[in-house]
Amino acid sequence: MNLNNLFNPNSIAVVGASNDKNKVGYALMANLLNGAKRDIYPVTISEKEVLGLKAYASIKDIEGQIDLVLIAVRADIVPSILEECAAKKISTVIIIAAGFKEMGPAGAELERKVADIAKKNGIALLGPNCLGTIDAQSDLNASFAAGKPKKGHIAFISQSGALGTAILDKALSEGVGFSKFISLGNEAALSEIEFMEYLKDDADTKAILMYVEQLRDGHEFMRLASEITKRKPIVLIKAGKGARGQEAVMSHTGSLAPADAVFTAACRQSGIITVDSIREFFNMAKLLELGILKPLQKLIVLTNAGGPAVITTDLIDASKSLSLVEFKESTKGALRKVLPPMAAVGNPVDIIGDALSARYESALKILVEEKEADAIIALLTPQMMTEPEATAKLLADYNKKKPIIPVFIGGPTIETGLVELKNDGLVNFTFPKDAIEALDDLANSKKRIDPFVTPAHAGVQGTTIAAGSNAPAYGGPTSVKEKMMEPDKLQSLFKEYGLEWPCVMIKEKKELPEALKKAGEDPWTLKAVSPGIIHKTDIGAVRLNLKSLADMEMAWDEIVENVKKNKPDAVIEGMLVQNMAIGKEVIIGMKRDPIFGPTILFGLGGIFTEALKDTSLRVAPIEIQAAREMISEIRGIKILTGLRGESSVDLEKLAEIIVKLSKLAVAHPEILEIDLNPVMASSDSATIVDARAMIRV
Amino acid sequence: MNLNNLFNPNSIAVVGASNDKNKVGYALMANLLNGAKRDIYPVTISEKEVLGLKAYASIKDIEGQIDLVLIAVRADIVPSILEECAAKKISTVIIIAAGFKEMGPAGAELERKVADIAKKNGIALLGPNCLGTIDAQSDLNASFAAGKPKKGHIAFISQSGALGTAILDKALSEGVGFSKFISLGNEAALSEIEFMEYLKDDADTKAILMYVEQLRDGHEFMRLASEITKRKPIVLIKAGKGARGQEAVMSHTGSLAPADAVFTAACRQSGIITVDSIREFFNMAKLLELGILKPLQKLIVLTNAGGPAVITTDLIDASKSLSLVEFKESTKGALRKVLPPMAAVGNPVDIIGDALSARYESALKILVEEKEADAIIALLTPQMMTEPEATAKLLADYNKKKPIIPVFIGGPTIETGLVELKNDGLVNFTFPKDAIEALDDLANSKKRIDPFVTPAHAGVQGTTIAAGSNAPAYGGPTSVKEKMMEPDKLQSLFKEYGLEWPCVMIKEKKELPEALKKAGEDPWTLKAVSPGIIHKTDIGAVRLNLKSLADMEMAWDEIVENVKKNKPDAVIEGMLVQNMAIGKEVIIGMKRDPIFGPTILFGLGGIFTEALKDTSLRVAPIEIQAAREMISEIRGIKILTGLRGESSVDLEKLAEIIVKLSKLAVAHPEILEIDLNPVMASSDSATIVDARAMIRV
Repeated sequence: MNLNNLFNPNSIAVVGASNDKNKVGYALMANLLNGAKRDIYPVTISEKEVLGLKAYASIKDIEGQIDLVLIAVRADIVPSILEECAAKKISTVIIIAAGFKEMGPAGAELERKVADIAKKNGIALLGPNCLGTIDAQSDLNASFAAGKPKKGHIAFISQSGALGTAILDKALSEGVGFSKFISLGNEAALSEIEFMEYLKDDADTKAILMYVEQLRDGHEFMRLASEITKRKPIVLIKAGKGARGQEAVMSHTGSLAPADAVFTAACRQSGIITVDSIREFFNMAKLLELGILKPLQKLIVLTNAGGPAVITTDLIDASKSLSLVEFKESTKGALRKVLPPMAAVGNPVDIIGDALSARYESALKILVEEKEADAIIALLTPQMMTEPEATAKLLADYNKKKPIIPVFIGGPTIETGLVELKNDGLVNFTFPKDAIEALDDLANSKKRIDPFVTPAHAGVQGTTIAAGSNAPAYGGPTSVKEKMMEPDKLQSLFKEYGLEWPCVMIKEKKELPEALKKAGEDPWTLKAVSPGIIHKTDIGAVRLNLKSLADMEMAWDEIVENVKKNKPDAVIEGMLVQNMAIGKEVIIGMKRDPIFGPTILFGLGGIFTEALKDTSLRVAPIEIQAAREMISEIRGIKILTGLRGESSVDLEKLAEIIVKLSKLAVAHPEILEIDLNPVMASSDSATIVDARAMIRV
Repeated sequence: MNLNNLFNPNSIAVVGASNDKNKVGYALMANLLNGAKRDIYPVTISEKEVLGLKAYASIKDIEGQIDLVLIAVRADIVPSILEECAAKKISTVIIIAAGFKEMGPAGAELERKVADIAKKNGIALLGPNCLGTIDAQSDLNASFAAGKPKKGHIAFISQSGALGTAILDKALSEGVGFSKFISLGNEAALSEIEFMEYLKDDADTKAILMYVEQLRDGHEFMRLASEITKRKPIVLIKAGKGARGQEAVMSHTGSLAPADAVFTAACRQSGIITVDSIREFFNMAKLLELGILKPLQKLIVLTNAGGPAVITTDLIDASKSLSLVEFKESTKGALRKVLPPMAAVGNPVDIIGDALSARYESALKILVEEKEADAIIALLTPQMMTEPEATAKLLADYNKKKPIIPVFIGGPTIETGLVELKNDGLVNFTFPKDAIEALDDLANSKKRIDPFVTPAHAGVQGTTIAAGSNAPAYGGPTSVKEKMMEPDKLQSLFKEYGLEWPCVMIKEKKELPEALKKAGEDPWTLKAVSPGIIHKTDIGAVRLNLKSLADMEMAWDEIVENVKKNKPDAVIEGMLVQNMAIGKEVIIGMKRDPIFGPTILFGLGGIFTEALKDTSLRVAPIEIQAAREMISEIRGIKILTGLRGESSVDLEKLAEIIVKLSKLAVAHPEILEIDLNPVMASSDSATIVDARAMIRV
């Protein structure tokens, strides 16, 4: 679907145009007329002309081609107007009007109708209930958002119109420019997916900001994002994390991988920079505005004040991926020559409080030549002699040789400097942490893993099929019914995927001697199999370290007794006999997310799982390299690799289990959750000790 | 020492006054004349009058009383001028001039001279190398910082002049007011301590901001802070955390309790709110400006935009101490009556995009009556109909009934609203996270523990005595030499404080039978005692689970062999025989901090200590309640209290060990570090298994 007419149409009709300044139809007209010259056709029956242009009673009355129609009328009239558009072979429509899905069932019905008309007639439809679009490069404001954004190279897709206007307005103050702005509204037809696809190859767009409340298609989103982020950073703010409390928890993996964790994992996996606040979102926009699209990690701090420089150094030290460049003696010597004796020629370079702009320049001349450094953070505080304006001009000059990130801290005294920075195409970070956080976010996103590959039969991966405008908001509770899979069936299924679960399931006590032969050397364990029992240990349904048939038989009776006492409703379907595995406990699990399909979880097991929730998460499928990274990501990795000379467990065997489980999960959409818990890892083995799977009923 | 003349003097002499606008002596004069009417005496030999006032060649020439002298001349002249002040019985002097300690040994010598003169003559001396003081209430600017702060109730003590001016300037833009500002400079005489003491009872000051690079006296600081924070919040930003890498690590406790962690623990213990960035510091100042001095945790969010409200909700959910109030049906009903049908009457209250100020008012009328709620966060985004100015006015009105925290997000379109907020004495938070972070910081600081009590003989607690201008910056490496204390001596010392370390130390193998009798039941452990061996297990110097004398004898030989092989230089002084304790491993340690003296560390032992560094920290002395809190603070507390029905270890016994160790540490300043590692905790016991102490040589 060609979306060009949403951004650079030659002719536009505004249905619902008005001379009343309180009406959206006025704002739309005024904004359109405030841009590049285009043919604008107001459509209204109540006025003869709008803002000096001849008004038409209907779209039908307009002669010649119309590239784009904006509709800002009462919701119930919209379908008939859309039919008129179809009759006139109009390719592109934005429904600004509200009163659809957001108003309840009747509105949703109306929205479906509108979507159907658009689909049948091949109309590219944005909205309803949206602000519209803006293209700063083609000088089009086809929205009712006030103001004209600065021309820039950042595209901004928003599922909230209000957040859109707030950010656009704030950006005007701070000198952040945009290429395109898209307010998605209810997404009756076009969604974030189509616009990501469009912006991927948009020459004006070098980076993308997204505000997202829900996704239409998790896998398509990941596929596109993975492709885009190879060339253009995507910064995403996701709202509505609160849903996590609502989910039913049927497994350890389920409780350890709430929907918002899955979402964040999916974004990371696709190379997206996720942020949790508008502040971080906006600071990232500033960084992108400065043309910083790739990680700059090795920094120089140049300052006229010690205190703020020390704090900045602390923040860099505390960051995940940033560091200060260590200067060579030659650099220090060069700085010493041009700076006063009290200046500090290490990094931070402190040119002290009485620095005029000329002293900034003396230092900058040397610092921009420092090959080790990726960027210079230029701190300025208002001291007696400070020259904010001249210094700002200077930074803009030297920014051509090496990226400079201005942090002017102050109020009225530095105002001229801030204005000058903006005039020169730079932006200022209010506080050092604003810049450091943004740089660190950018750098961390690039510690990136194998690109995401959509599994062959992606459509059926979620617990609910997420498609169309009725897709649930991600993270909502699912209404899918599930039951536990029989252990012997699970064991055979595992075998198909090369997963060994060494246990023998028997139904009766008399089968014990045979089972012991199959299970291998003592000591053994005995566990009850019962769909009603989740935590076996708690109710005495497990016996460990058994060394003889007699032990086993006694254990059998004890378990039966314990279950009868502690969980009288539970039916024992049999018992599992296992040879006792030794090693360190880990958990490997699978959970099917409603939007992203199967996700794999890895974590330290036992008390670590429950007390520390030290886990990592990926959307399946997972290749071996990503599996290795999942393992290495957990905080307590040292517990597996060995402390103080202790030997490491076999991480590769664990990675293989992850890959196999991922394959199984992709191929079996009926399985909703799997816990391999624990898997015992030793220096030469990784053994699945216990496993459970929940399947769709 | 009376500091009143630093803030409200009747007469002031400026030595080094000048008509040259590039000189500090000009800025001082101009700032003084720009305030309340006072007798100002310029002192200079190069001019006849300064800014229209008759100039004096020397202080001696001035007749009548001089309450305050500002000195802004070359450093080497300062001592003679100070002598003149002394001769004229002047009580209070600020040395603005730089060129002292910060310039190296010669400057330090000059600074000592100046300090001596002040001390001998009872002069209250601020500086040198400082900006001076400002009192917005008495309308005095005795500094060379530009501008006149807004009158307010926040005092600001800064060890960085530059940070001071930056914050004061920024505060002017954002409507944050101050009572007093003090630039401490080199602290030749007066330090943060005297000003904390002064501000404690200053009626104009309701809250204190501090920027700190080093402290003069850790315990006095804690004592004062504990007292002040009972009534006035202190917000502190500490710079220079980087020092942590430099410390020599002689014990587990040492490596787990770096100086900046001790500093943060000391602040928390004293009720101080610590922040790590200027941004957080400034946002806290905004909160204090709004008069919010105590935690407000139960919040209402009022908004004209859904997206930002959802993000704000997420941030509140993710905060440590904040929550949204749940409305009663009656509140929702009342809101429904006055709001349009599309509005959301839950919390957040979304009055939607077309809200005029009147609709804000309709909602506010109801919301300020909501008894459950501590405060209302009022979000405003620039939509088509938004009235920023009128809404701002309204917020100021309703702020009288319940604290309102404005978050207007935008740029030019909301500018009139920001101005109005300032005019009405409110301040705006740029983004929701700025407000949420500040509210959470304030609330978290009040989860506070027993007040800190200075131990009886505080002066000798640090490894270096921190006093006078040559005190090391906190966190710097100490040059103290230490050696390991003999285990039998340590054991006896422990006994004095009621600490049982059940082990028998023997020098020779033939003492084994006797030792086994004393040690109690098998199994036993055998460990080498050798000052040269830190990690005994690593080199085979420990044998566990020994069940007979023969086992023990064989183990003895093996250990001797292992040490010879793996650590040939180490001298085995004997062996420890112990009955094997069972339970969960914890570490309890003591480390003497150069500024705060003995600090006690508690953490999970074994792999948890090394892989996860899950510990808590307090400055001694520690009473039983604080000890309990230390234990409950660790992330992995569930591991001790028992997972899934497992019984808890005896936390009270652990708390008792902490209290006893704290007493021992306070009484024995020669002991620098102690590790009790591990202590084995079971459901009815806590046993010290291994202990080491480093003492001053």
